[in-house]
Amino acid sequence: MTLLVEKYGGTSVGDVARINAVADKVAKSRADGNDMVVVVSAMSGETNRLSELAAEVNPLAPAREIDVLLSTGEQVTIALLSMALHRRGVEARSYTGSQVHIRTDSVHGRARILDIDDARVRADIADGRVVVVAGFQGVDHEQNITTLGRGGSDITAVAMAAAMGADECRIYTDVEGVYTADPRIVPEARRLDRITVEEMLELASLGAKVLQTRSVEFAGKYRIPLRVLSAFEDGPGTLITYEELPMEQPLISGIAYNKDEAKLTIRGIPDEPGIAYRIVGPISDAHVNVDMIVQNVGADGTTDLTFTVHRNDYKKSLQILTETAKKLKARDVGSDDNIAKLSVVGVGMRSHAGIATTMFHALANEGINIQMISTSEIKISVVVEDKYLELGVRTLHKAFGLENATVKP
Amino acid sequence: MTLLVEKYGGTSVGDVARINAVADKVAKSRADGNDMVVVVSAMSGETNRLSELAAEVNPLAPAREIDVLLSTGEQVTIALLSMALHRRGVEARSYTGSQVHIRTDSVHGRARILDIDDARVRADIADGRVVVVAGFQGVDHEQNITTLGRGGSDITAVAMAAAMGADECRIYTDVEGVYTADPRIVPEARRLDRITVEEMLELASLGAKVLQTRSVEFAGKYRIPLRVLSAFEDGPGTLITYEELPMEQPLISGIAYNKDEAKLTIRGIPDEPGIAYRIVGPISDAHVNVDMIVQNVGADGTTDLTFTVHRNDYKKSLQILTETAKKLKARDVGSDDNIAKLSVVGVGMRSHAGIATTMFHALANEGINIQMISTSEIKISVVVEDKYLELGVRTLHKAFGLENATVKP
Repeated sequence: MTLLVEKYGGTSVGDVARINAVADKVAKSRADGNDMVVVVSAMSGETNRLSELAAEVNPLAPAREIDVLLSTGEQVTIALLSMALHRRGVEARSYTGSQVHIRTDSVHGRARILDIDDARVRADIADGRVVVVAGFQGVDHEQNITTLGRGGSDITAVAMAAAMGADECRIYTDVEGVYTADPRIVPEARRLDRITVEEMLELASLGAKVLQTRSVEFAGKYRIPLRVLSAFEDGPGTLITYEELPMEQPLISGIAYNKDEAKLTIRGIPDEPGIAYRIVGPISDAHVNVDMIVQNVGADGTTDLTFTVHRNDYKKSLQILTETAKKLKARDVGSDDNIAKLSVVGVGMRSHAGIATTMFHALANEGINIQMISTSEIKISVVVEDKYLELGVRTLHKAFGLENATVKP
Repeated sequence: MTLLVEKYGGTSVGDVARINAVADKVAKSRADGNDMVVVVSAMSGETNRLSELAAEVNPLAPAREIDVLLSTGEQVTIALLSMALHRRGVEARSYTGSQVHIRTDSVHGRARILDIDDARVRADIADGRVVVVAGFQGVDHEQNITTLGRGGSDITAVAMAAAMGADECRIYTDVEGVYTADPRIVPEARRLDRITVEEMLELASLGAKVLQTRSVEFAGKYRIPLRVLSAFEDGPGTLITYEELPMEQPLISGIAYNKDEAKLTIRGIPDEPGIAYRIVGPISDAHVNVDMIVQNVGADGTTDLTFTVHRNDYKKSLQILTETAKKLKARDVGSDDNIAKLSVVGVGMRSHAGIATTMFHALANEGINIQMISTSEIKISVVVEDKYLELGVRTLHKAFGLENATVKP
């Protein structure tokens, strides 16, 4: 028997009709002879509704109680999906995070899974039942309910797949897989049949919304065969692989973009050891993630440093940086939140030079000025003015020939 | 320290404003120095909303999954009330039925509490916290979520009070206590300061909606001081007592009515041993509760038997009785759902004659015909045509002088 762990997100279970559609899919897969664990999120809109109730009652509500509240969302879905399966003659049993013993640490709102006691799930599977598990939630060592934070249901699915040694973990979403670029921007964008875990990680961290970085990392750690596919359309989706790539693999797998960042610059600071730490340290201490960092040496023995943060942290970061600038007697501070980040990602660039040249040349040809550059082994990111986002993505998609199935280096 | 267990029903926590009002009440009682366990129901309307979702997904949904679904209702309330208490500076912690170890049997939808492991609640109380517990729900020996059925939150409160040896269990409702009659029918009806547990049991089983029979029985078994009071108005409510009554206790405590019953009669059946069983047995076998039963012997060696059932079971019962009549070659079957039951309840009647006479005389004076009579040690019930319900209740209330605080026998 093949054991599948399938995860359906909030949109896929957003109302009774959609829950019925998921039940149809699961019943069919079960009838095909697969053993199944199904992980579901709260019905779309439910988490927001509950969060608004909480904010109304107490804008500074304790995190423990927020988790008690929010975890009811998935509990509703597991019950309804199990009922829908029963109506289709499929024996199913629902489990909350607590019941299935998804043990986490006690960091409410963004708990991490420690282990899963899957004895009961295995027994149900052995008895021929489909097991329906509430995503996004767990329980700490004192039986307090915890939630896993953003992308938590994906994490639950990957963790269940790892614990049970599933043959495949399938993440059903509202897209048909991983694309060479956002199809809303590039109509010629192609769905990728396969992508390496490293590329998927880069794409996730660069703003592709298909999978959260955390669940890809988790899958990579345990080498779980992970497939992203559509909850609404039939199709093979995209498989995340851990093998070496065949020779004809394209250089570049995809173009990613991110318009959720803002840029901050501090100019005319002493060019001395430890200066970057003294600038970025206070920002990190305020729990702000710093993304790209570049430093240029100026002509007069001073230097400039530029970095990007999430747009939500823009004002806070600017305030901190302005204070730092006073202390360091910096010349001035600049900031800009009208920026976008464009990235090309591909394991092929490990062994091939000239990717950066092709990228910069293509952008220059369209008159798109590059403000910052940052590279890793398998990606190159540039920051440009945000009005060039769509043009930039289309230009790069074409420059690397991604509309064709394969491109020889 | 005084330890109070307080229970607030669905109407009392029906929206954010009402949850805030409950939090104010609890915070005040805590500030007065009381240790507190608060049991809450689902916000009013929530259980219906969830039940309708379930019915849409699967009209024959498995009871286990219905319990998983419905139990989210109270879980939402415990989280919100805890948040509201925190906002008032009161340390509070919420517990689901599963977390507080309210262990039940496995009869989903109407589970019975087996025991409560209150160690964690005691520790919280000792640490100065208010403990907020989800009513209506528990967990069986396999960690399946169960619900306790109608009046379940009251049961939870009484059970918590029993387990913890609380000084008082307070059931907050939308009425100010137990009245000598329904104030909507009898404007002169008085709130009773105290009532014996036996009287309360009769009133509950006779249709007074203040408390469910099951929770009163439970409280009586453990002799929990139980008080019914208003969630919306200040006031002492009504205390349910276990002591012998003082001399000046009135003969009659209250008048109850029930208009949810229907009457069935089978006529011309052989007057022989076992005949009542052969008639009532098939009705009970169909899970219909039979309430009043009377039998008259006729002149010709045959007899008639009349009984009442809940109006919801009327059609089913009539069908069964018609089949039985054929088998027994009965003369005919009659039925009537335009009936009402009027009852007078009071422990005083144990030691005093003439209560029935007063009752029958008062009704006769108003031209109200009595169709059936049934008595117990502390109550007399009669069935009348339902159009006489209000007149009958007012007549009896006056006949026993219940508008005055005390009536000497």
